Amino acid sequence: MRRTNSETPIPNPQHLLKNQPPTSNPQPLVLLTPGPTPIPPSVLAKLAEPILHHRTVEFGAFFERVIQDLQYVFRTKNTVLLQTTSGTGGMESAVANLLSPGDKTLVATAGAFGNRWGKILKAYGFLPIIQEEEWGSAIDPNRFEALLKTHGKDLKAVYLTHTETSTGVVHPIEVLSRLIHQYSDALVVVDSISGLGGQELKTDEWNLDVVVSASQKGLMNAPGLAFISLSERALQVMEMSKCPRFYWDWRTMKKSVPNKETPYTPSVSLVVAQAEALRLIKEEGIESVWAKTTRLAQWTREELKKLNFPLFPHPPCDVLTSVSVPESVNATELVHRLLKDFRISIADGQEKLKGRIIRIAHMGYIRKEDLQRGFSALQTCLTDTQKK
Amino acid sequence: MRRTNSETPIPNPQHLLKNQPPTSNPQPLVLLTPGPTPIPPSVLAKLAEPILHHRTVEFGAFFERVIQDLQYVFRTKNTVLLQTTSGTGGMESAVANLLSPGDKTLVATAGAFGNRWGKILKAYGFLPIIQEEEWGSAIDPNRFEALLKTHGKDLKAVYLTHTETSTGVVHPIEVLSRLIHQYSDALVVVDSISGLGGQELKTDEWNLDVVVSASQKGLMNAPGLAFISLSERALQVMEMSKCPRFYWDWRTMKKSVPNKETPYTPSVSLVVAQAEALRLIKEEGIESVWAKTTRLAQWTREELKKLNFPLFPHPPCDVLTSVSVPESVNATELVHRLLKDFRISIADGQEKLKGRIIRIAHMGYIRKEDLQRGFSALQTCLTDTQKK
Repeated sequence: MRRTNSETPIPNPQHLLKNQPPTSNPQPLVLLTPGPTPIPPSVLAKLAEPILHHRTVEFGAFFERVIQDLQYVFRTKNTVLLQTTSGTGGMESAVANLLSPGDKTLVATAGAFGNRWGKILKAYGFLPIIQEEEWGSAIDPNRFEALLKTHGKDLKAVYLTHTETSTGVVHPIEVLSRLIHQYSDALVVVDSISGLGGQELKTDEWNLDVVVSASQKGLMNAPGLAFISLSERALQVMEMSKCPRFYWDWRTMKKSVPNKETPYTPSVSLVVAQAEALRLIKEEGIESVWAKTTRLAQWTREELKKLNFPLFPHPPCDVLTSVSVPESVNATELVHRLLKDFRISIADGQEKLKGRIIRIAHMGYIRKEDLQRGFSALQTCLTDTQKK
Repeated sequence: MRRTNSETPIPNPQHLLKNQPPTSNPQPLVLLTPGPTPIPPSVLAKLAEPILHHRTVEFGAFFERVIQDLQYVFRTKNTVLLQTTSGTGGMESAVANLLSPGDKTLVATAGAFGNRWGKILKAYGFLPIIQEEEWGSAIDPNRFEALLKTHGKDLKAVYLTHTETSTGVVHPIEVLSRLIHQYSDALVVVDSISGLGGQELKTDEWNLDVVVSASQKGLMNAPGLAFISLSERALQVMEMSKCPRFYWDWRTMKKSVPNKETPYTPSVSLVVAQAEALRLIKEEGIESVWAKTTRLAQWTREELKKLNFPLFPHPPCDVLTSVSVPESVNATELVHRLLKDFRISIADGQEKLKGRIIRIAHMGYIRKEDLQRGFSALQTCLTDTQKK
């Protein structure tokens, strides 16, 4: 999967530039990675429309629809902001806009993306209290409560992860949020970049102050947009934050929302495409999308169990499944072979889980038949390994 | 042009969602705004291709081509970084990565985008020395030299604008850069967001340490990517900068370049499309693109002179033309009418120039026939005004 030399040709025919020879594998790619995920045809078609100017009635209408439909998907009446950046930029904005030097924070983490909160906070000079659980586990509410009992009164914000993409676990956000509000005035900040639009999330009902998400996972668009919902409390805190920021500044963004625009040129094509992707989600209904994702997750776990891949996380989330690979199998090699021989793209483990788990997504536009192709290919790879 | 109520339908048929009635004006939009600019059909087609995963050989090949072809367009052997953000995010990264608290800086400005450097610096707590010229003028090298004689030894970086999009002026970057190097060890930082790929720019020959640009103007792609070239001196300074940063951190980005990837999920579709847009530029040759843009600029100025619109900036840049409107004409109304009745999108003045100038772009994929349609429509509007 990784490049070895600088002149590697582009092997996928659908992406070949003119005058390049066809390659040996003409099958279309089946993308089962946890982001970017496949994009529905009608959304892809929107990406290819002639570009609009971003200070026009036309663009304003798309912008407004996206914000309203995001409120529907986030299950919130809160302000929702849209920013041209990766999800990580959205996360950084939730540090830069909410804190001032010396503020105390808590990060509850059990994986690479939970750890990212800690890294961003440290880059800004904060020294967060870290509750770190074993990768594959969820945050233990008892230990979390103990930390809140001790530190709750001093905390300005608590940083959580909804679905931890590096391990496939779902954290008990509703429970954790209730505990935070019980012991603290801290803002509840949630990364739901891979969760939103797949895993049940109820921003208002669960009292989440800030939820960060992005376009390329459950929201079925290309990567490049981050979305952030902000409670009234978060809006008040942002006005007083002393961290340096300009592009990330929510105050400027919020002022632009009534004009149906963004302070700086947004990724216009992605906004237009996002309107279509959200239309599809709304047409299906968010509860139906959650239920469908749960069914796909259950089926995926059953199929992988039949192939003797033990489930890795506890409890597993609905948007991706990660499983341990048998001792005899190297996950990294397996992922490479699936891509090379079958054009199936799944994910290896990250960091300390590299080579030890595989991760298969079933969020957004990933369909049962795509997953079925993945399982068949996996079966073939395993049979071949046993023959050797 | 601005929206007035929240239920405004989307009036452009090519963007209509299903089941909406056609509107009264079926003409395609002619986009003559200084960004986003029209996107060539082959580039639009790339935006609509099935999404790739960003940690694959396929994506790596696109990433590598984009970086190499950007070096060609920037006229540099320097490191070029790619970031998913608006151009303003790229500018902010040139503050966050190069400075530490207390550093002295100089901003030379004569418009809204030059002023943006000052705003970003102030948001980070810096107190830049500002050389402000009248809007429509270029930076005066004599006054600039005088400032450098006094402050040059103390300066860490000087922030310049190549083509000032708010006024249509081109600043004498080559001269200013030579003066900086004569009097100072300060880094030369240039915003060429609207200039690159239209107005002549020679990063290495002119000794520019940092040049920031973006995808949606001369580079003929949708907005959403920023590009930054960094000299060896800039790379050394970035290692020591003490400003807080995470997503903007050039150190992390630079480490990812040899792996042909970005630290966080990039806007994959825009990178794939950028490869195609850069292929078109390379095929034509950057010198030919500059020469073509110069010819279009000269012709535009002649045509607008015939219509009695006096040229506003001195000296005018090649990528857009801004002209004053006669006392009897309100520029804001003219811009609205051109869009409403003729589907021609040009730009009003910004901030203190709002209503006083109009701005017409001729960069990137804007063609002579598009401009001709614009001039004809302008002629009609003016004749109608005189009749009244």
